[in-house]
Amino acid sequence: MTRALSSYAAGRWFTAEDAGTPVFSAVDGTEVARVSATGLDVAGMVTYAREVGCPALAALTFHERATALKALALTLMAGKAEFYELSKSTGATRRDCAVDIDGGFGTVLSYAGKAKRELPDDVVYLDGAVEPLGKRGTFAGQHIYTSRRGVAVQINAYNFPVWGFLEKLAPAFIAGVPSIVKPATQTGYVTELVVRRIIESGLLPEGSLQLLCGSPAGLLEALDGQDSVAFTGSAHTAALVRAHPTVVARAVHFTAEADSLNCSILGADVTPDSAEFGLYVEQLVTEMTVKAGQKCTAIRRALVPTHLVEAVLDAARERLERVVLGAPGVEGVTMGPLVSLDQRSDVLAAVDKLRSAAEIAIGDLDGFEVVGADARTGAFLPPLLLRCTDSAAAPVHEVEAFGPVATVIGYRDTADAIALAVRGGGSLVGSLVTRDPALAREILLGIAPYHGRLLVLDAEDADESTGHGSPLPVLVHGGPGRAGGGEELGGIRGVLHHMQRTAIQGTPDILTAVGGRWVTGAKRRDDGVHPFRKSLAQLRIGDTIVGGPRRVTLADIEHFAEFTGDTFYAHTDPVAAAANPLFGGIVAHGYLVVSLAAGLFVDPAPGPVLANFGVDGLRFRTPVKAEDDLTVTLTAKQIIPRSSADYGEVRWDAVVANQNGDPVATYDVLTLVAKTDGDQQAD
Amino acid sequence: MTRALSSYAAGRWFTAEDAGTPVFSAVDGTEVARVSATGLDVAGMVTYAREVGCPALAALTFHERATALKALALTLMAGKAEFYELSKSTGATRRDCAVDIDGGFGTVLSYAGKAKRELPDDVVYLDGAVEPLGKRGTFAGQHIYTSRRGVAVQINAYNFPVWGFLEKLAPAFIAGVPSIVKPATQTGYVTELVVRRIIESGLLPEGSLQLLCGSPAGLLEALDGQDSVAFTGSAHTAALVRAHPTVVARAVHFTAEADSLNCSILGADVTPDSAEFGLYVEQLVTEMTVKAGQKCTAIRRALVPTHLVEAVLDAARERLERVVLGAPGVEGVTMGPLVSLDQRSDVLAAVDKLRSAAEIAIGDLDGFEVVGADARTGAFLPPLLLRCTDSAAAPVHEVEAFGPVATVIGYRDTADAIALAVRGGGSLVGSLVTRDPALAREILLGIAPYHGRLLVLDAEDADESTGHGSPLPVLVHGGPGRAGGGEELGGIRGVLHHMQRTAIQGTPDILTAVGGRWVTGAKRRDDGVHPFRKSLAQLRIGDTIVGGPRRVTLADIEHFAEFTGDTFYAHTDPVAAAANPLFGGIVAHGYLVVSLAAGLFVDPAPGPVLANFGVDGLRFRTPVKAEDDLTVTLTAKQIIPRSSADYGEVRWDAVVANQNGDPVATYDVLTLVAKTDGDQQAD
Repeated sequence: MTRALSSYAAGRWFTAEDAGTPVFSAVDGTEVARVSATGLDVAGMVTYAREVGCPALAALTFHERATALKALALTLMAGKAEFYELSKSTGATRRDCAVDIDGGFGTVLSYAGKAKRELPDDVVYLDGAVEPLGKRGTFAGQHIYTSRRGVAVQINAYNFPVWGFLEKLAPAFIAGVPSIVKPATQTGYVTELVVRRIIESGLLPEGSLQLLCGSPAGLLEALDGQDSVAFTGSAHTAALVRAHPTVVARAVHFTAEADSLNCSILGADVTPDSAEFGLYVEQLVTEMTVKAGQKCTAIRRALVPTHLVEAVLDAARERLERVVLGAPGVEGVTMGPLVSLDQRSDVLAAVDKLRSAAEIAIGDLDGFEVVGADARTGAFLPPLLLRCTDSAAAPVHEVEAFGPVATVIGYRDTADAIALAVRGGGSLVGSLVTRDPALAREILLGIAPYHGRLLVLDAEDADESTGHGSPLPVLVHGGPGRAGGGEELGGIRGVLHHMQRTAIQGTPDILTAVGGRWVTGAKRRDDGVHPFRKSLAQLRIGDTIVGGPRRVTLADIEHFAEFTGDTFYAHTDPVAAAANPLFGGIVAHGYLVVSLAAGLFVDPAPGPVLANFGVDGLRFRTPVKAEDDLTVTLTAKQIIPRSSADYGEVRWDAVVANQNGDPVATYDVLTLVAKTDGDQQAD
Repeated sequence: MTRALSSYAAGRWFTAEDAGTPVFSAVDGTEVARVSATGLDVAGMVTYAREVGCPALAALTFHERATALKALALTLMAGKAEFYELSKSTGATRRDCAVDIDGGFGTVLSYAGKAKRELPDDVVYLDGAVEPLGKRGTFAGQHIYTSRRGVAVQINAYNFPVWGFLEKLAPAFIAGVPSIVKPATQTGYVTELVVRRIIESGLLPEGSLQLLCGSPAGLLEALDGQDSVAFTGSAHTAALVRAHPTVVARAVHFTAEADSLNCSILGADVTPDSAEFGLYVEQLVTEMTVKAGQKCTAIRRALVPTHLVEAVLDAARERLERVVLGAPGVEGVTMGPLVSLDQRSDVLAAVDKLRSAAEIAIGDLDGFEVVGADARTGAFLPPLLLRCTDSAAAPVHEVEAFGPVATVIGYRDTADAIALAVRGGGSLVGSLVTRDPALAREILLGIAPYHGRLLVLDAEDADESTGHGSPLPVLVHGGPGRAGGGEELGGIRGVLHHMQRTAIQGTPDILTAVGGRWVTGAKRRDDGVHPFRKSLAQLRIGDTIVGGPRRVTLADIEHFAEFTGDTFYAHTDPVAAAANPLFGGIVAHGYLVVSLAAGLFVDPAPGPVLANFGVDGLRFRTPVKAEDDLTVTLTAKQIIPRSSADYGEVRWDAVVANQNGDPVATYDVLTLVAKTDGDQQAD
């Protein structure tokens, strides 16, 4: 089944003419593919991304990009069987494939959903509130994010040939930045097949995705400050890329996600007879065996109260003995081989180093059974659980055996547990098993600066827990120090990593024009038509209605108190109200003020406005007293059509003022408005 | 007045015993100071920061740190005269000093204010909303920021000896991270004096600020992934630091702010007789002459419609001829010398390079007058405005003359203006003068990916504009590519650069304990005392009151419509309401629902709750129909004492549910609550 892998570059498939580097099956050592990029114009891929990919993506809004991603994920899911089948040669069991393949498609879907819910239907993302920069309000600031005009280069690791590139592609794509995917040689054949199906689908704009199978020589040299490199793999190679002269000189954005010595801490409150004890051991064994422990998020250090070390080992032994090592797809097999014989050699070398401060407590390197394959030609290795003999020694905190290997380390007390966890020098993830929230706070705040993600497991969340080793699209992934110092994913956070944040300064009119959201002080428009009578097709940002005045009487306040039951003394008791340091007398209810304001701006007859679905940022700024006259000014602030409905959201700026012009309440009113007059179903 | 500068290291002042490097006055070339760090334990400063500075800052909340910074800024401001006096030797005029000295203290004050308003009185900052991770609600995620356990190393440029270190110190200090300040040799004597006054004040915890005057050899080698280096200066040195083996291998956080070829664009809509034309030229001249053009944010490229190039030069000539070059402090002098003779040589060399694509239109290198000083011994250089002869040539877009030098470049049309601006390869700032919001949007979105800040100037905002060249503490400062690829300031954004973002996963109870904010699904506590009867001293997160049920009748809805005037058809017209796609019949007003809810949870008698000052995130989730029974559950979510008042803010989680248990409205209620029973002034 050997085939020469192709690259997808500058709009066509390229296959090198030389023999290339052979890649062998993890299971039986037979040749699976050959990889070469000899003759490929690698720098031309960067140019193509900039000249074809960037404009194609810039022509789409966040929502349109999300729509494309959703369709892609559904298409890929429907055809996932062939990806599962091909992945067997990498050593992946069905469970491993679910993590990689379904996990990858799920990440794409998650990004599509997040983008529709949390980003506007535009190409500009507004960051934070308007910053007033002058007292008279003619000059203000607003941070915006715009798409970088460059390419997102991925240099991926071998262990997740599908998830690994999709978790980087999805945020970049939503951000409007094209990607060049460079998969690892050992498993790139799986990536190539998925990319082939993506290109065939035609669902992504041409230029937004290119594939480089083979040497990336010349790629980094073509980059500049609009480009980024996201590296996943060894710390050694990460350092080479980070220090590359072009990356350094042109301030190319660089992020790394390197393997780390992730810890899992058993809380001192947990006893061997508790549910949490079982959960701790079960999670440890899972993390050792999924992907044969070839996960950058796997548990390498099991930190356990000293007196529980043997109990943990005993419980783990029982579970590890049930692991069936063998060829993926063969009945009963629960753990596959490592990806290659080279990788097995690396793991064994690391285990040797660990043995200077630990001993193998569970697992036999010389005597282990393999089902459905030959242990001599496949890259098989049994799970190995080590017992640390010197928790102060460096190797157990610094040497990573990237396979089914972990070390149980005893700790004395909470401070010691924190100190040992920190010895990892920065990790992608850590976990803690405890029922004690106070202990959780102490340990988590102690180790959070050294971690990208921390999971607390107990009997209450165990059923729903996604597990120590699973990065989630909505949570950040990455870690400081040894883990590479990078950050990916985290929902929209991951999108923004591909965009440039810029502070815009100018008049409210300029900020409104640039950001697409009405800013206080910008021009208002009153064309004589009540804005509630306009569909999205007719409504413009700045359209305004002024209602009022309406006088608030003491009788109104007394009646409202009685009617609603809100008889708070500031509304009902003149003497007590006078003693209130903020009011100094009877005040109207805040809810009365906004209720009356609605009465002043609402247009009662059926029309395009379908509903008021919420209010944001309501602040009561000046107390309203009896005999005050209220006026409300309502201005269309932001218009967000929903792509899946015949209506959209309109955010209105509302200011209620008193007879002196002092604002008494400011807030945003959120409504659903029909897209066109034809959509006014209530007519 | 020569003196040997000292370093403040590990709690004591250190003065090297060797002669050191002499520093000369910019004005007359006399020796001002000598700089040496020979014999200083530089690596020991890093250890001291970690072991003394970090714990001292960790013991303070964000608000406590802000209080210290505010006191510091006020103390420094009161004694600023000596800083002004000493700065004269650097070539700084009073105007220049205002930018550096008052600007620096203002930045510290701004951070103190932002921290009190936008950060909790805690050590953990919550980032974004809770992410549900399971359908049953037992497992969720929350991003938090915690202080890095390392040191913020500053390597600063010579041009802002005061602002330059304070704009980096303030965000790091608020973040809880100690700083080591390494000033530039040429002007470090000003920094040293300010640091001396800071240390003398005793206002900052020991270890939170150290000063390194002299060689930083050995400093970078002592850093790890908890530390950061913020470099301001030349691209060449930035590259050396960025590629330093320790920085690379340990993923030390690195940010650079390098000089850039900032542009200022004159919009094609501006005519020579308009106010904007004058503003454009005035801003250009200001940016050329403040700090003698030694600002990384100064305008280097004036992009002007081709037909207006001569008009701009003519108008600039008139203004530049009024500039009086001379010794700072001498009557009438408006521009001082460059910082040193070396710097003048560098600028002249750069001007030579520019002359391959431009000619000097204004300014005479050989014949210029200097007031109150000797042009042969001081580093004086007259303002030079060049006329570009080939806008496509590289030098005008790539060579920076870091002095009072700019080049006027003609552009054909808007697309050309954008293309030329982008040729800078990434800039700290750009500006645009126009009255046309649509043109502003087109140009700003075209160049935003290449800029950290963009200012739009017109007659409306000119009076309040802070100017092209002024970074503001509340806006980000930095830029991609040539500008270094870094980001600083931006209010709380700058604080977060010094903290680690970590995704926490666990039960709602765990997230509540770790983050200090009640999370939906966490335990509620009802001890029989209405939580409105508890002062901040008594109230606990999770304290809950359940009110209701209250039946909503059709009469209630009709009455509310009549009383408030909100006669929207969905509340009043059964036929039209039935046709509404979302309601299908008469519904209660959202404002009625929250008004009734308040009636169910308010405790009427005077007590510690002083006022309801707002509502956040109100969403109406299920329509309320006549005869529905409403119940409200109010839970103390977050408690934020105000350090400047005897009350604080309490955020309450409010859920209004119907008789089926469906949530009909969810929101946060914001109240002011007295700190203790004694503060219940309304009693």
